[in-house]
Amino acid sequence: MRRDTAQPVGGGAPSPEEIRRRNLAVLLRHVHRDGPLSRAILAERMGLNRSTILALTTDLVAAGLVTEELPGQTGKAGRPSLVVRPETERVYVVALDVGADRLAAARIGLGGAVLDRTEAARVGGAFDPDDVIAALATMAHTMIRRAAPGATCVGVGVAFCGMVREEDGVVRYGPNIGWVDVPFGADLTTALGIGLRVRVGNNANLGALAERERGVGADSADLIYLHGDVGIGGGIIMGGEVLGGEGGYGGEIGHMVVNPGGRPCACGSRGCLEAEAGELALIAVAGRTDPPGRMVVEAIVDAAARGDVRAREALHQVGEWLGYGVANLVNIFNPSMVVFGGVLREIYLAAAAQVRSRLAVNGLLAVRERVRLRTSALAADATLIGAAELAFADLFTDPLQTVTRGCTDSA
Amino acid sequence: MRRDTAQPVGGGAPSPEEIRRRNLAVLLRHVHRDGPLSRAILAERMGLNRSTILALTTDLVAAGLVTEELPGQTGKAGRPSLVVRPETERVYVVALDVGADRLAAARIGLGGAVLDRTEAARVGGAFDPDDVIAALATMAHTMIRRAAPGATCVGVGVAFCGMVREEDGVVRYGPNIGWVDVPFGADLTTALGIGLRVRVGNNANLGALAERERGVGADSADLIYLHGDVGIGGGIIMGGEVLGGEGGYGGEIGHMVVNPGGRPCACGSRGCLEAEAGELALIAVAGRTDPPGRMVVEAIVDAAARGDVRAREALHQVGEWLGYGVANLVNIFNPSMVVFGGVLREIYLAAAAQVRSRLAVNGLLAVRERVRLRTSALAADATLIGAAELAFADLFTDPLQTVTRGCTDSA
Repeated sequence: MRRDTAQPVGGGAPSPEEIRRRNLAVLLRHVHRDGPLSRAILAERMGLNRSTILALTTDLVAAGLVTEELPGQTGKAGRPSLVVRPETERVYVVALDVGADRLAAARIGLGGAVLDRTEAARVGGAFDPDDVIAALATMAHTMIRRAAPGATCVGVGVAFCGMVREEDGVVRYGPNIGWVDVPFGADLTTALGIGLRVRVGNNANLGALAERERGVGADSADLIYLHGDVGIGGGIIMGGEVLGGEGGYGGEIGHMVVNPGGRPCACGSRGCLEAEAGELALIAVAGRTDPPGRMVVEAIVDAAARGDVRAREALHQVGEWLGYGVANLVNIFNPSMVVFGGVLREIYLAAAAQVRSRLAVNGLLAVRERVRLRTSALAADATLIGAAELAFADLFTDPLQTVTRGCTDSA
Repeated sequence: MRRDTAQPVGGGAPSPEEIRRRNLAVLLRHVHRDGPLSRAILAERMGLNRSTILALTTDLVAAGLVTEELPGQTGKAGRPSLVVRPETERVYVVALDVGADRLAAARIGLGGAVLDRTEAARVGGAFDPDDVIAALATMAHTMIRRAAPGATCVGVGVAFCGMVREEDGVVRYGPNIGWVDVPFGADLTTALGIGLRVRVGNNANLGALAERERGVGADSADLIYLHGDVGIGGGIIMGGEVLGGEGGYGGEIGHMVVNPGGRPCACGSRGCLEAEAGELALIAVAGRTDPPGRMVVEAIVDAAARGDVRAREALHQVGEWLGYGVANLVNIFNPSMVVFGGVLREIYLAAAAQVRSRLAVNGLLAVRERVRLRTSALAADATLIGAAELAFADLFTDPLQTVTRGCTDSA
C-alpha cells in the first residue's frame, strides 16, 4: 500500500463508537461553557449535519444530561431549531478549596452555576491532614445531601494551596499548611467513599483556568492569575495552556525573591513575594493581631479608606512589593492580562497606584504598554469554579459512561 | 452528505503538490538535524514507503540539496539502503549576531556545520543603526564571497540583543545598544541587496533553540537559556515551544529586579538581574577599566583562579545575584534545565558554588530537585547557530522554490 502523507505509524482511524463518544463530549462541553444553544448553532460549530446533532442530543437527553425545548420568539420564518440546555440541577460536581486560611465547598452544576456553597475560616499554622480530610468529607457530604432528589454527582475536584502532583493527587509541598508529600487525593477519595476518584490541582492554576473560561480573562491566551491568601500562588496560562514545567510545579511565583534578606517566609527563605505582599505581611505592618483571612484584610482596607495612617502605610508597602512582583512577571512573560484573585483582589484595589507606578518604572515599554491589570471576576469562587472544571473532566471525556457511574443517592 | 467527525469547516484535504512539498521539507529537515540518514530510516521515520522516499530524494538531488551514496560496510545481507546526505558546502545560510559587545557573522551549511566565521569586538555605548547595518552587510558579503563556487545562500538570519518584532524585524528595544523602534530587518535587507529577506530574532530565544536542537538541551522540553553579554537575555522553552507571550517579547529575565534600589540599569530601573550579574557589574566590582566583552571576563576569571582577592569577591557577588535570578526562574518555571551561555558561561563556571547555594536556599524542593544547571555546549556559537535555524526557515517550508530563488553569485 502506498501512503503519500507522513503519518504517525499505527495511528489508525477512530472507531464509529469512539467518534460518537468524542462528539457527545464536544457537544456537552459547548452547552456547559456557553449555556443553552440551538441545534443549528451546535451543528455549525461542530461541522456536523443536523441529523447527527439530533442523534447526539437524543442520547444526551436519554442520559439525563441535557433537555431540549422550543426557543422563545425568534421572528424568523420556518421551523425553529430546538435549544439544548444543560441539566444544571440534575448533574453536578462537588468542588472543594483548601486555602491556608479557609476551607470551602460548593455544588456546581453542569453549565457552571454555583448551586450551593459553604465555607469555614481556619486559623493559621500547620494542619493535620486527617483533620482537613475529615472536614472536607463532611462538607462534601453536606453538598451531596442537599442536592435535588435524583441528582447525580459526576466528580469531585479540589483546589489546593500548594504544589500538587496531578496524576495521583499527592501534595508535594504546602508551606503555609505544613504538608510535605501527603497522599491527599487518595486519602480523601477513601474518606468520601462515594465511588468517585477525587482530583486535586493547584489552586492558582485552577483559578487561572476559571478566569479564562468564565471570568475576566475570557479569550485571553496569555494570562497570569495571582491568588493571595496567606501565600501567593501563580496560575500562568501561556498560548492557551497552563504552564506546568517539567514536573507540573511551575507558577510558584510566591517564592520569587523580591526583597533579598527581607521578611522570613514559610518556605525557609526570606523576602519572597508572598512574605512581602501576602496577608501576613499586611497584617504585621498594619500592626494587627487578628488571625489571617479575608476579614482582617477587608478591615485594613476599610481602615485605610477611613484615613488610618498605619493601615494606609501597610497597603502602600505591600502594594510596592506586589508591584515589583508584577513588573518582574510582565517582563518575563509578556502577558496580555494579570488578574488579582483571593485577597490580592482587595489588596490590589486598595493599592493599585503603587502597583501601577512600580510597573511603570520597572516594566519594559513593549511589554507593559499592552498588559491589562484586572481583578478576578469570580472573586472568592474562582478556585472553586476551577476545581469544578477539574471534576467535570471525566464527563467531558466519556459523558454516558461517567453519568452512569456517578453518585446519585449516597447521602 | 453525512459528516460524522467534527472537523474545521473549510479545512479541505491538501493537494498532491502540497503533500509533496511538505514531505520534501520534512525529509530535508531530518538530514539537516541528524546528518546523513539511510532511505530506510527516513521511510520508517516519515511513515512513507521506499518508492515515495526515492521520488523525494530524486527531487532533492536534482535541486542540489542532498547527495546519495552507498553507506559503509553494514554487515547486513541484501542490497544496502542508500544514505542521504545534506549538501553542506553547497547550500548555506548567513548567520549574524548583534551583541552589545560584539558583531559576529558565520556561514553555516545545511546540516548545521559552521563553515566560516568572523567576529569584531565593539566598544560599549550607543551605536548608530546605519553603522551597525553597514558593518553587518560587509561581514555578510565576506561570508558569501568566500563560499565555494556555485554554492547557494538560501537565507540570512540575525540574532539581536533586545526585543524584536519577528514579523517584520523591527527592533522594539535594545537598551544596551540604545535602539528604540529601529526597522532593522528591512534596512539590513536593503543594505545587503542580495534578494533575500533578512529575518531577525531575539538572541537568547535563538540561543535556546540552538541548545535544544544541537547543544546541551537535546530533547529537553522545558529549558531556560540565559545569555550574558553587557545585558542578560532569557530564552525560555516550555513544552517544546519558545515562550513568546502576547506580543512575542517574553523572556526579558534580565530586567527582573533581584536587588531593589541596587545598581542602575540601562533600562532606567535599578537592581535588574543584568545590572547585578552582567558583565558591567563584574567589571565594576572587580575594579577594572577594560571595555566590556569576553576578554575582560576571562581576565577576571583567570585573576580569581590565581588568587586575586578582588576578582574573587567580584565573582562571588555576581554569582550570588545570578543565583537569586536562577532560583526565581526555577520556582516560576520548574524547568528541567538551565543553560548558561555567552559570558554567563564563564561566570557560572567560576561562581557555580554561589549559584548552587542560592538555589538550595531559595529554590523549592520539588522544583530544584530535578533541575540541571549546565553550560552552553555551543558556547560563543549558540546565538549564531540559532540565527542560522531562523535563516533556514524558508528552505524547510518549500525546499525547491527556496533554493531556486537563493543567492548564488552575488559577491
